[in-house]
Amino acid sequence: MAESHPMIGGDGTYSYTKNSYLQREGIKYAKGLIDETIAHKLDIKDLLSNSRSFKIADLGCSVGPNTFICMESVIQAVKHKFQSHGLTEQIPDFQVFFSDHTFNDFNTLFRSLPPERPYFAAGVPGSFHGRLFPESSVHFVHSSYALHWISQVPKEILDKSSPAWNKGRIYYTGAPDEVGKAYAIQFAKDVEIFLDARAKELVVGGMMVLILPGIRNGISHSCAVVNVMLDLLGSCLMDMCKEGLVSEAQVDSFNLPTYVPSPKEMIDLVERNGSFKIERMELFDPVPGNEAQILGSGHAWKMHFRAGLEGVFSKHFASETIDELFDRFPNKAAEKLKATSTETSLLFIALKRK
Amino acid sequence: MAESHPMIGGDGTYSYTKNSYLQREGIKYAKGLIDETIAHKLDIKDLLSNSRSFKIADLGCSVGPNTFICMESVIQAVKHKFQSHGLTEQIPDFQVFFSDHTFNDFNTLFRSLPPERPYFAAGVPGSFHGRLFPESSVHFVHSSYALHWISQVPKEILDKSSPAWNKGRIYYTGAPDEVGKAYAIQFAKDVEIFLDARAKELVVGGMMVLILPGIRNGISHSCAVVNVMLDLLGSCLMDMCKEGLVSEAQVDSFNLPTYVPSPKEMIDLVERNGSFKIERMELFDPVPGNEAQILGSGHAWKMHFRAGLEGVFSKHFASETIDELFDRFPNKAAEKLKATSTETSLLFIALKRK
Repeated sequence: MAESHPMIGGDGTYSYTKNSYLQREGIKYAKGLIDETIAHKLDIKDLLSNSRSFKIADLGCSVGPNTFICMESVIQAVKHKFQSHGLTEQIPDFQVFFSDHTFNDFNTLFRSLPPERPYFAAGVPGSFHGRLFPESSVHFVHSSYALHWISQVPKEILDKSSPAWNKGRIYYTGAPDEVGKAYAIQFAKDVEIFLDARAKELVVGGMMVLILPGIRNGISHSCAVVNVMLDLLGSCLMDMCKEGLVSEAQVDSFNLPTYVPSPKEMIDLVERNGSFKIERMELFDPVPGNEAQILGSGHAWKMHFRAGLEGVFSKHFASETIDELFDRFPNKAAEKLKATSTETSLLFIALKRK
Repeated sequence: MAESHPMIGGDGTYSYTKNSYLQREGIKYAKGLIDETIAHKLDIKDLLSNSRSFKIADLGCSVGPNTFICMESVIQAVKHKFQSHGLTEQIPDFQVFFSDHTFNDFNTLFRSLPPERPYFAAGVPGSFHGRLFPESSVHFVHSSYALHWISQVPKEILDKSSPAWNKGRIYYTGAPDEVGKAYAIQFAKDVEIFLDARAKELVVGGMMVLILPGIRNGISHSCAVVNVMLDLLGSCLMDMCKEGLVSEAQVDSFNLPTYVPSPKEMIDLVERNGSFKIERMELFDPVPGNEAQILGSGHAWKMHFRAGLEGVFSKHFASETIDELFDRFPNKAAEKLKATSTETSLLFIALKRK
């Protein structure tokens, strides 16, 4: 069973709802890419030969509002395609499946659904590292900021006798090569399972758009600002360790379950799976030239991380430890940000089911 | 917008999860009727000509566990039908849509889904007094103990100048005819909207099974034990009113939004709608000969009502008032139960989309 790391529910200070603006910026940029993909690559006629409704799944939807913006945008693009082909009369009903882990806060999601939505809404609880839908029952899959979550921390990085033991860190940035490799292998396994499941669920000709943090081909993991910031979060924990506020064993046994792949890694995984044609793939900066405004401060990174990662930390650390950790982080982050490129990269991939 | 009256979520003392045994008994009995209906009336070949999965919706599913028992039972019956026709190879994937009001506790529902379920699960938030699914996208609709909830209390029973003003009562039992008529008209409107929506959502040949409290044709509403017990709940409130614990205006302005129809009323409504063929309709006693054991005590009725109705009461009354009301109820109910027939009736209706 895959581990579950829900975003913070509700709408409090650290909620995902209030702290997902970087994701939102990425989505705004990705909108253009999705629109173009649908306009040029989606074959609407074949797709609906066996169905009177168009079914869209958002995998890793969290609690909103980003998912609502994305889904409306996909629907607009599909409608526009029907219209531009003179098929306005044939525009189908749309059904959107909002999917995330069983412990996602679906109550918040459902209660914040836009009242005037152009689709029928459904929620699907479960891990995307496994089947979620009947065979050939989905026409379009969307997944933003989700596939970089791996289903589990690789076992060897917790094993003291392994060269991949990740002592004194919570991530693979700046760690021995073996640690990064163990993460990469786990990510590859997870993506394989993900692609297998989606290949069964998507109709032939159905499309899938994936957006996730990415790094440039051939670049060290330590060059990505997200990775640097996560490493820094680990070093704050080690500081607390030195002060006796948290035990070394506790830090050693904790690792973040995410991985940031390169385009080349994703191409290899898709080709190895064999069920999908890559229609488009590119690495983009979600906030070109504006990084400093959006994630240029230590405080901004704190809020960004806390909303997304508190669920993971709270399974392992006491709440006082987490509060202290996130209180320390902004100052340390601010120093580092002065010396680091704040360029962030997202990977956009559009696949078609062969 | 239809009013929402979610059952009590979670799994506490008064939760629906722990207090839905009468519903469960009804479901056990109805299982036989559903099995027969599927065996004799469901046309599996035509139904799946356009789909590789069989889609089932449970409308008014609440938080479980009854809905899980029902859905597995429907799926077993459909699988059995395929097998008995030598079509084991063609057994499709099943997708179950658990639907209830947006304020239903879907988190509890999702977290208690059976891990080894023979279907893909989805939740659909929204009122069944309106559209929930795309056109022709569902093969089988099930709804237990839900359709008797009306979308709103009829306006005239709150109008002091109307002959239907329901002064000093919270239900239509023992009230002037005009009150019962106003309830009946509201119920008819709601069922009309319900049938219209389902007619659009079900594929041709798709079936719908409805189970709801019912009374025999030509019998006074005051003869149904549920109605008598609800009237008694109102009289406890009036006692509290006399003691100054709650104001008369508060009681006068409160009415329960449920209605118990007769088979004849339901036949008329289905025929007026025109989209469905009635394949089977019968009134049955869910606990024949065992009523006294199951709902023979005032306490049992208290728990039964509180789990189902607290949501409605709590929108209108303070929590102390509700506690006091339900504390008073068992004794008064016990007296009445000695003198009343405890026969309860459920209405079973199987419809096929023409």
